[in-house]
Amino acid sequence: MSSTSPRIGIAGITGRLGHLCAEEAGPLLVGGLSRTADPARNIVTDAAELAGTCDVIIDVSHASLVPAHAKAFAKAGCAWVLGTTGLDSTAQQAVQDAAAQVAVLQAANFSPALTMLLSLARQLGAALPDYDAEILEVHHRQKLDAPSGTALAIGRAVAAGRDDEFEAVKRLDQNGKRPDGAIGFASLRGGQVVGEHDLRFFAADEEISLSHRALDRRVFARGALKAALWLADARRTAGLYGMQDVLNTP
Amino acid sequence: MSSTSPRIGIAGITGRLGHLCAEEAGPLLVGGLSRTADPARNIVTDAAELAGTCDVIIDVSHASLVPAHAKAFAKAGCAWVLGTTGLDSTAQQAVQDAAAQVAVLQAANFSPALTMLLSLARQLGAALPDYDAEILEVHHRQKLDAPSGTALAIGRAVAAGRDDEFEAVKRLDQNGKRPDGAIGFASLRGGQVVGEHDLRFFAADEEISLSHRALDRRVFARGALKAALWLADARRTAGLYGMQDVLNTP
Amino acid sequence: MSSTSPRIGIAGITGRLGHLCAEEAGPLLVGGLSRTADPARNIVTDAAELAGTCDVIIDVSHASLVPAHAKAFAKAGCAWVLGTTGLDSTAQQAVQDAAAQVAVLQAANFSPALTMLLSLARQLGAALPDYDAEILEVHHRQKLDAPSGTALAIGRAVAAGRDDEFEAVKRLDQNGKRPDGAIGFASLRGGQVVGEHDLRFFAADEEISLSHRALDRRVFARGALKAALWLADARRTAGLYGMQDVLNTP
Amino acid sequence: MSSTSPRIGIAGITGRLGHLCAEEAGPLLVGGLSRTADPARNIVTDAAELAGTCDVIIDVSHASLVPAHAKAFAKAGCAWVLGTTGLDSTAQQAVQDAAAQVAVLQAANFSPALTMLLSLARQLGAALPDYDAEILEVHHRQKLDAPSGTALAIGRAVAAGRDDEFEAVKRLDQNGKRPDGAIGFASLRGGQVVGEHDLRFFAADEEISLSHRALDRRVFARGALKAALWLADARRTAGLYGMQDVLNTP
Repeated sequence: MSSTSPRIGIAGITGRLGHLCAEEAGPLLVGGLSRTADPARNIVTDAAELAGTCDVIIDVSHASLVPAHAKAFAKAGCAWVLGTTGLDSTAQQAVQDAAAQVAVLQAANFSPALTMLLSLARQLGAALPDYDAEILEVHHRQKLDAPSGTALAIGRAVAAGRDDEFEAVKRLDQNGKRPDGAIGFASLRGGQVVGEHDLRFFAADEEISLSHRALDRRVFARGALKAALWLADARRTAGLYGMQDVLNTP
Repeated sequence: MSSTSPRIGIAGITGRLGHLCAEEAGPLLVGGLSRTADPARNIVTDAAELAGTCDVIIDVSHASLVPAHAKAFAKAGCAWVLGTTGLDSTAQQAVQDAAAQVAVLQAANFSPALTMLLSLARQLGAALPDYDAEILEVHHRQKLDAPSGTALAIGRAVAAGRDDEFEAVKRLDQNGKRPDGAIGFASLRGGQVVGEHDLRFFAADEEISLSHRALDRRVFARGALKAALWLADARRTAGLYGMQDVLNTP
Repeated sequence: MSSTSPRIGIAGITGRLGHLCAEEAGPLLVGGLSRTADPARNIVTDAAELAGTCDVIIDVSHASLVPAHAKAFAKAGCAWVLGTTGLDSTAQQAVQDAAAQVAVLQAANFSPALTMLLSLARQLGAALPDYDAEILEVHHRQKLDAPSGTALAIGRAVAAGRDDEFEAVKRLDQNGKRPDGAIGFASLRGGQVVGEHDLRFFAADEEISLSHRALDRRVFARGALKAALWLADARRTAGLYGMQDVLNTP
Repeated sequence: MSSTSPRIGIAGITGRLGHLCAEEAGPLLVGGLSRTADPARNIVTDAAELAGTCDVIIDVSHASLVPAHAKAFAKAGCAWVLGTTGLDSTAQQAVQDAAAQVAVLQAANFSPALTMLLSLARQLGAALPDYDAEILEVHHRQKLDAPSGTALAIGRAVAAGRDDEFEAVKRLDQNGKRPDGAIGFASLRGGQVVGEHDLRFFAADEEISLSHRALDRRVFARGALKAALWLADARRTAGLYGMQDVLNTP
């Protein structure tokens, strides 16, 4: 595996994020995986076939495909950037198994700044246990669920920093008395906002907040490519990594 | 009635806001009204008695007292700054009746900047009917209800600017599909925040927002005093005024 | 002139903003004006020739062309949306002369929300004369000048509301004692920010702010088209209009 | 030295911050140091005399007194919380010497959240080297210098994270071309703002920011007390500590 110009494949290349990843990969792209083959673009339907031609595969396909991908990529010695979410325990075990043989980077979100926000949120939770933590997220008018998965992930990071169980401190309704140690959530919807997340810590005499704003969905594709290049480095050994390793943050 | 140094009385002088109003009035204060008399501080229990010694009375007492105050102040020719909320239709009619005889200024909130925000919110609602309007409010950890009364008032102002019925467009739960024309609400709770309100308008290619932050409850007392001085002006005729008249805003 | 489907021309159609305006105009576009003719796209070099085929022309060309355009468009009875800035007094007089014969809408910025912000800024300046007004603007890393022209326009609006002369209260350097009534400016530069403007009013016990964020340059083209459609309305008489007329705001 | 109820002294007790520290210390306060003795309040003029009665001294006096305090407190075996700034190299060496004998905590700012912000700023600088970093600070209308010392400290933290020399990347004027790697500054002044600091990182497709707002000067006194209690812990050995040690953050 060469660190200078790794050969990159994309699983789920015909999806929206897969398409952006392909654009970002540019000349490093050697092929993709999809339900329908497209020889003109080197898109195949067999995971082993793609893995045989790549140093690293960015996988933004579907949770149901994870066990098969895990076997095929590990067997081929191909590094694996896994961005698929919603894995059941069987799929997650398959990821662990693959990580015993090849370098695997698993992340729910490839944005560098959001990765940092999760790390910093945990640290704030640990250092400021007596401050009231609240999270606001803003998304486009089409979004159907609230709060966002990322907002919940931020809340989990704060709770982890405090050694609290997230489900016990999560507060989705701001009516009634605010329990000590609660982590509250609020959501706004409008326009075409890609994603805003604000984490605020309140004390009587000061406040500190962490805010992230995604301006373009492309940020996720760029982060996935960054992860792929990091993973393809010749010195990377087998194991399970996260985006925080790419950014060298605790 | 002199505009240079009006004699000011305070109904509800022993309450928290009444106390702050008394401090702001300083040497202009001539006495107050409360359930228990306190001759040392010129606090009486009879509305007519106080009205006989004042040019203008700031009333931050209780809705149940409004009809009696209306009669007493009107009979004495005393101007009336009314900040009590929660009036039933009988009390509101008593206010109208008093306003036929003396100058009355009624406001739910005396903050100059918040008064402006309500006026500007209505104008934004009228000028940008296709933008998604959303309101965030932040208050201290002890507050029990959400969203705040002021947040709802801001929503009503936007709806009024759009000629929409507020109850039909109010959206308290951000789950599910956002209806066109909805006005969404979100709340955060923490620390000792006196009150933050953000009104945001979203379009696909731009956003505009109006934000207010109260830093000290004293702002309400200062605004009430400002209203009293404005109302005590010799040129003020009988009628029902609002804080927007003090600020000369539409 | 028909209000249902006006024929729209664009002067400066080959510039960046002209190009976006053409896209927004879609099927209403009948032709353009540029230094080089392009018959395939109905682009001509003669202002009178274009004016003869249009109900309204969106002009985003150059200040030096304004006097010639003024004569040609007025003679043809063609309405004129003028977004060119940097006009000298001769050019501005030509605009006034044209407005005696046809409907002319002149604006430095066609964003609906920014138009509102300027109107609201003036009102805040008038209503809150004792509050400290400060303006922050944020733009992309390539911008060379600071503060932005729009930030200065916001400052002028606040000063106008206060009946102050802008040049006398403008404060570009925040070192030293802040004079009463000053309007301060600050700038940040980074990323590809299209444009953020925050106007903040500070008192000891409360703050109010107005914020605008342009997300896509397309907002200016959409606003120009909105202005063209408004101007092309059959009921519009000769005269000089502004974006505030389109939004029906004072 | 007992960790449960340490005896606390305050050097500079008659200054504004010293006064607040005394209030926060409450029953733990055993005396103070000032230019004028006040036996009724246990205020003495001799550093050794105060040190003999305390477990830990919070020092918010003056830089010129640091060498004398260093000797007296070290000799008495008294822990030292040092918040005085503007130390020359002689004074700083005296601090180091004292730290060889007793536990010393030195900090320019005792706010827990601001201490965290400095730590997180360094981490963001390290993890996101290609993002444009900009800093906004807002202070009350009386402040004479800009940017604030804390804003510069935040800039230094970002530069340290990037292994850049701060003076080489500091950008105080936003006119002209923004150099790669620059750290820009902007200031606003108004009202009675105790202190707001925003650190923003911009990329083309995302932004992350860290914001701190001091609401009450008391936050500095509370932080100093927190530092004193931490330092008075029986397990604390001689050495030079910082607020980040109190918060257990890197």
